This record gives sequence, structure tokens and C-alpha cells, in this order.
Amino acid sequence: MSTIFTKIINGEIPSYKVAENDDFFAFLDINPNAKGHTLVVPKKEVNRLFDLDEELYNKLMSFSREIALAMKKAISCDRIGMSVIGLEVPHVHVHLIPLNKMEDIQFMKKVTLQPAEFEAVAKAISSNL
Amino acid sequence: MSTIFTKIINGEIPSYKVAENDDFFAFLDINPNAKGHTLVVPKKEVNRLFDLDEELYNKLMSFSREIALAMKKAISCDRIGMSVIGLEVPHVHVHLIPLNKMEDIQFMKKVTLQPAEFEAVAKAISSNL
Repeated sequence: MSTIFTKIINGEIPSYKVAENDDFFAFLDINPNAKGHTLVVPKKEVNRLFDLDEELYNKLMSFSREIALAMKKAISCDRIGMSVIGLEVPHVHVHLIPLNKMEDIQFMKKVTLQPAEFEAVAKAISSNL
Repeated sequence: MSTIFTKIINGEIPSYKVAENDDFFAFLDINPNAKGHTLVVPKKEVNRLFDLDEELYNKLMSFSREIALAMKKAISCDRIGMSVIGLEVPHVHVHLIPLNKMEDIQFMKKVTLQPAEFEAVAKAISSNL
């Protein structure tokens, strides 16, 4: 049984894609903490971050950095925060979140965006890669 | 003016040290979200994670992985979570937190430990490195 992220990667569930390479898929969190909140997911289904083998972990961190640098150019914010939790979906995902205040990374307050806003922010990030 | 983390690294402020190498210093968060909550800090004072140069960023992620693998051996938990926020202290720090539930990584509920407990958990992690 595939995880929801594998279904997104395979296009069975639509997403606002930011970037993709052989190993990873980056797309907007549909229930974002802040505008531009992006998830970076390895195509390989592994539950826990620190169960990734060293090479794939290093590649994931490196790819996440590239996405974060593009996000900082595309989105007005103090900085990009990073969080890996994984208690809800058993498939590694790096949260990259534009931060201005602590609550932006507490996963309690969410923002609502319209489809056109999701499309615009995904395009703004990907065009800065 | 040195950051509080530079003062800890220099020994001007005491800490429960977990590990150290040429580039990084790892120690227990004195106001932990969960028992074993560890901070990994570059000795170089840089405010934002994604302003680190690529080499130092990659080394920081790699060193944090080593610490997290030791934490997982030393501490009973579902997984080790990772979070980089940085809005309060302008010196990059990676939070590594033993997670069992979402609130362990929300930085709202804190746990109180006695000095002997801090000492025991720091030793348990470092002995698994």
C-alpha cells in the first residue's frame, strides 16, 4: 500500500510541484503553516529520516538546501525553517517553511490559499531554482 | 558580542556536552522539549541555516545525523525529530529531539530534568557515538 506521498509523486493525487529529480520530489504542503510551505520527499518510501542510508540522507539535505535557497528568493520572510517530524505520514518528508514568527513552525495555525495562489508560489519558487 | 552558544562552546557558560569536533559542538538543551533534546551548533557564528556555505551546511547535516543515530540508541522513543528555527538566538542550531508525539516538537511543553539526569543522558548519547 503506497503512502499518500508516493501517490503524489506518481501523479495519482494532484499536487503543486516545485521540483523533481531522480531521487526526490518537492511540492507545496496543501495545508500550509505559511505561504510557500514546501515538502521535500524521497521517492524511496522510508518511514524515518535517520533510517535513510547515509548517501540518500546527504542528498536529501543537499536538495532541500537548493529548494530553501530558491524559496528565500521567491518569498518575503525572515528565513526558511526546516523541520522533520514524520509522526503522521510514514514516509520521510522535510518541511521547509518561510518563517517570520515562532508559530509558523508549530504546526498549529494554518493559512488558507486559493488554487491560483498555490500555483503562483510554486512557480515563483521553481523559477528561482 | 558573542552569542550564548559561542559562550557555551568556549566554556564561559557550562553545558552538558554530548560531542565536539573542529567545526561543531553538541550539547543538551537546558530547557528541553523531551529528555535527550540536543542542540548541534557550528563553532562559526552564522545567523541563518541557509546562509552557511554549502560545505559547512553539508558537514553540519552529516554530524547531526551521527548524533541522532547515537540518540536513538540511547533514548527510548519512536524516532528522532530535527528542527532548525533560529528566531530567538542568531546562531545556527539544529534541534534533535526524541519524539513520541507531535507536542514533543512544538516547543510549547517543556520537561524538567535534574542535573544528574542531564549528566546521565549526555553520557548515554556520547557513549553511543
